[in-house]
Amino acid sequence: MTARGGIDLGGTKIQAVVVGEDHEVLGQARRPTPTTGGPQDVADAMAGALGDAAEAAGVRTKALGGVGAGSPGIVDAGAGTVSGARNLPGWEGTFALGDALSRALGCRVALGNDVQVATDAEFALGVGRAYHSLLGVFWGTGVGGGIVLNDEPWLGRGAAGEIGHVVIERDGLRCPCGRRGCMEAYAGRGALEIRARKLEAKGEKTKLFKLMEEHDRPRLTSGIWARALDQGDKLATSLIDEAIAALGVGVASVVNVLDVEAVVLGGGMGVRFGEPFADRIREAMAPHLFSSDNPPVFEIAALGDLGGAIGAAMLVA
Amino acid sequence: MTARGGIDLGGTKIQAVVVGEDHEVLGQARRPTPTTGGPQDVADAMAGALGDAAEAAGVRTKALGGVGAGSPGIVDAGAGTVSGARNLPGWEGTFALGDALSRALGCRVALGNDVQVATDAEFALGVGRAYHSLLGVFWGTGVGGGIVLNDEPWLGRGAAGEIGHVVIERDGLRCPCGRRGCMEAYAGRGALEIRARKLEAKGEKTKLFKLMEEHDRPRLTSGIWARALDQGDKLATSLIDEAIAALGVGVASVVNVLDVEAVVLGGGMGVRFGEPFADRIREAMAPHLFSSDNPPVFEIAALGDLGGAIGAAMLVA
Repeated sequence: MTARGGIDLGGTKIQAVVVGEDHEVLGQARRPTPTTGGPQDVADAMAGALGDAAEAAGVRTKALGGVGAGSPGIVDAGAGTVSGARNLPGWEGTFALGDALSRALGCRVALGNDVQVATDAEFALGVGRAYHSLLGVFWGTGVGGGIVLNDEPWLGRGAAGEIGHVVIERDGLRCPCGRRGCMEAYAGRGALEIRARKLEAKGEKTKLFKLMEEHDRPRLTSGIWARALDQGDKLATSLIDEAIAALGVGVASVVNVLDVEAVVLGGGMGVRFGEPFADRIREAMAPHLFSSDNPPVFEIAALGDLGGAIGAAMLVA
Repeated sequence: MTARGGIDLGGTKIQAVVVGEDHEVLGQARRPTPTTGGPQDVADAMAGALGDAAEAAGVRTKALGGVGAGSPGIVDAGAGTVSGARNLPGWEGTFALGDALSRALGCRVALGNDVQVATDAEFALGVGRAYHSLLGVFWGTGVGGGIVLNDEPWLGRGAAGEIGHVVIERDGLRCPCGRRGCMEAYAGRGALEIRARKLEAKGEKTKLFKLMEEHDRPRLTSGIWARALDQGDKLATSLIDEAIAALGVGVASVVNVLDVEAVVLGGGMGVRFGEPFADRIREAMAPHLFSSDNPPVFEIAALGDLGGAIGAAMLVA
C-alpha cells in the first residue's frame, strides 16, 4: 500500500498529513485558512499544504494512493462538492472541491465531513478504540459533533451531529449561524472573537487583540486565547468561563439523548486547552446529566491536532 | 398464536389492552394511576386494568400468551424490576414488578421502557412504518423520547432518549427531576401542574382546579387542560403556550443532533391536543432547526392513546 494524504480544512487553519500503511504520519504541514477570496483560494491553500506535507515525507503528490479531505459545510462525497461552508470565505454556494484538489495534486481525491472524519479517526485509532459508541466534540471555530453508534458513524440524513446548534438558552445570544441561543454562540472560537470585539468596542479592556497583532495572527486563535488566559486577562477569562459552562450544558443535553459510552474532546480549542479544561467541562456537565451516576468517559482526542487530517486520509485507505 | 396483553403504566393513567395475532385490539380498559401507596398498589391497579381488558375481550388472563408492561423509571427487563420511577407513588427504590404482575395474572410477564415500547409500536405499526429513523416525543406527565435509528431502537447504555432533560434554558426553572432548565420543567404535565398551583397560590386566577374538582380528577389531566383552554383560561393558555415553545426548542435541538427522518408526537398531552398543537410545535421548532430546509416529517402517533399498551404487548409477541 502506498502513502496517502489527508487534509483537514478548518475555519482557522489547514492541516495536511501524508501517512503510511498503518496510518503513521510520514510528513505534515499547516497553512492558515484564507480569510479573503473564495473557494478556489481555499483549495489552492489546501493543495499547497498537502504539497508541503508530501515534501516533508519525501514523496510527490502524484505518487500518493489518494488524498482525503475533511471539510465543513454540506459535503456531497459522491459529487465531490462542498456547499454552504459558512466559516470559509465566499463559500455560501457549491464548489467542486474534489475536482479542484485532484487537478492540483494529480491524484484521486475523496471528500468527507471534517468532524465525522476526525471522529472516525479517534474511533479507529485513538481514544475511541475501547468503545462501541462515541460522541466527538470538536471545539474550534465552531462546535461540531461526530457520532458513532454500534461501531458505525451515525450521519442521519447527512446532517446529524450539529451539536453546536443545540439550544442552551432560549432567546439567547445570536449565533454565527443566524439563530439564537445555540451552544456555538457561547463557545465557538468565531463567536467568542465577535463578542470580544464588541465588548472591547464598548470600552472593556483586554489584551486579546494586542496579543493577536504581536503574534501576527489574522484572528484570535486558540493560542492567543491561551496566552491571554495565562496573563490573567479578565475579559478572556470571563468569556472562556462562559464557553465552558455552555459546553457543559450542551454536551450534557446530547449525552442525555444518546447515552454514549464516551465523549472525546477535540478541535483547535479543545486540544490546545487540554486536560485542565476538559476537567472543567466535565464538571460543568455533571449537574445536567440525567444518569448522573453513570456519566460517559470524557477524554481528550488522542490524535490531537492531527486527528482530522489522519481521519481524512482514512477516506482513501 | 393466542391473545396477548399489554399494559402502559403512565404517571396519570394505566392503559391496558388485549390484542390478537395482528396486534388488533380485542379489548381495552383504563384505570387511574394510584397517587398514594406504593409499587404494590400500582401493580394491583395494573393487574386490575388488564383483567378488565381481558374481560372485555372475553378471555381469562391465565389463557393469555403473555403480558408486556411498559414502565417509566429504570427497567431491568432481565431481572423483571423497575427502579426510581419518580412519577409514581413511593417508587424511589427497586420493585419486582414482573413477579407481582405474573402472580396476579397467572401468565408470563415481560417488562420494557414505556417510551421505547410506544416508539417501537409506532415504528412497527403506526406512523413510523414508512421510515428508517424516528424520534418519538411522548408529551405526558413528563416528556420522554424514543429513538429508532437504522430500523433498530437506540437505547445507549440503557438510558438514551431522555429528551425531557435536554436543557433549553441555563439556570432556568426547576424540573421535577431536581435539575434546572430541562424541557420537561416547562412542558411536562406534572411540572405544569406544580407551576399552576404555585401561580394560583400567588393570586393568579384560573379555572383549572375548579374544573379538576368538577370532573372528579385527582390531577390536572390533559382533558382538564384542554377544557381550560377551550374556556379561554388565561393562566392555562400562557402555560401551554410556554410548553409548546419549550417543546419546539428542545425537540429541534434533538433533531439537530440525530437528523432523523420523522418525529412522532405521542403521550397523553400530545394525543389529546392533536393536530392544531402539533402544528404549533412544528412552527416553534422551525427557527431552531439547523437543516431548516430539510425538516423531519412531524406527525401525531397513529396508534393514539393505545400505542404504549400495544407496544408493550409486542414485548411478548
